[in-house]
Amino acid sequence: MTAETTGTYTPTDRTTPTRLRERVSYDREAVHAVLDEAVLCHVAFVADGLPVVLPQLHVRVGESLYLHGSTGARAMRGSRDDGLDVCVTVTLLDGLVLARSAFHHSANYRCVVAHGRAHLVTDPAEKDEALRHLVDAIVPGRSDHVRGPDRRELAATALLRLDLEEVSYKHRAGPPGDDAEDLDLPWWAGVLPVRGAVPDAPVPAPDLAPGIAVPDHVRGWRRG
Amino acid sequence: MTAETTGTYTPTDRTTPTRLRERVSYDREAVHAVLDEAVLCHVAFVADGLPVVLPQLHVRVGESLYLHGSTGARAMRGSRDDGLDVCVTVTLLDGLVLARSAFHHSANYRCVVAHGRAHLVTDPAEKDEALRHLVDAIVPGRSDHVRGPDRRELAATALLRLDLEEVSYKHRAGPPGDDAEDLDLPWWAGVLPVRGAVPDAPVPAPDLAPGIAVPDHVRGWRRG
Repeated sequence: MTAETTGTYTPTDRTTPTRLRERVSYDREAVHAVLDEAVLCHVAFVADGLPVVLPQLHVRVGESLYLHGSTGARAMRGSRDDGLDVCVTVTLLDGLVLARSAFHHSANYRCVVAHGRAHLVTDPAEKDEALRHLVDAIVPGRSDHVRGPDRRELAATALLRLDLEEVSYKHRAGPPGDDAEDLDLPWWAGVLPVRGAVPDAPVPAPDLAPGIAVPDHVRGWRRG
Repeated sequence: MTAETTGTYTPTDRTTPTRLRERVSYDREAVHAVLDEAVLCHVAFVADGLPVVLPQLHVRVGESLYLHGSTGARAMRGSRDDGLDVCVTVTLLDGLVLARSAFHHSANYRCVVAHGRAHLVTDPAEKDEALRHLVDAIVPGRSDHVRGPDRRELAATALLRLDLEEVSYKHRAGPPGDDAEDLDLPWWAGVLPVRGAVPDAPVPAPDLAPGIAVPDHVRGWRRG
């Protein structure tokens, strides 16, 4: 949490691409923006020598990424001792890139990949604070409109922390890159922008007590 | 491609959850619907004993899943011989579940996890057909409005195929599950539905020849 929030992450072998290097950067602000905009991430780990990847909710607090979700009892047990090697990837799809040639079809996106060893959060105070941040990451302002976790609930919540050290940011933006000899083909080319996590009208719980209006933090929710 | 499209996948140890079993099924139709609605998937593999997960475009053709995207030269080399052990996960976020208690906050989602060994597609005819399906999976009808790949482009395209055998479907839907003693708290509870991949107005390529209108397959694009 005291780490710098500007500057760049230091590239490593794993975060240095072998192709399309121009799409990669290590800029902390770009990484933070993607992590903060996305509602969920995909967390990969190795179980019995084989890969597993599962979606989880996450929140970034400074240079720590907290992960919340079921990784299975086995993975959580593994993380209890020395930690669990993970790769956390967050992808935001920004557009469909439609070229004249099938070959140059692509997607516009922003993607963060973070490698490292995640550790189970055991300190109740850290867990309590991280969970508050998590609720506010998903719905800003929400943590002031809920009953906070009691001791039993805190104990029942498994949270992993990954410190952001080996991280890369990859993105594609802009129009299709057709070959010069294809530019006169009669096909439409361009980008169809898409947005993720677009809210519809809130649906009150069937057992909501009468007289409770949809609060501003729900009504005004938006991403990106 | 001749495999059945109804019925269920056979559960295995890996696809049997240790908790929240009621959220899991093996229904082929539910799996297919998620794979077909999502624009991208997350593909995990093991490199030097450590997990890596990257986003890729995909298309399902019958009971085969074709993956298209950079997995890095190393992973692709591995897949050239005996194949590459992968876990492919597709997650569609459907809503934010806002409970009276922080503890019962959750997300509504549909998620498919497929395990298996992916193989590099080497047969040019299979690759050609799969790429056509891929273009049409991303934008239905598009493959009739592009220049198809030539031999050089086909050779330059790396495509992995994963046969769908060890697959599970997990989802959450519906209102928050607050504890009975929290129902009278003064906090709003309910679901904020969200939709992914919502299109904005198409952006023509800057070098688009004059007089080419946005075609129906672009103007009418939608998911879910």
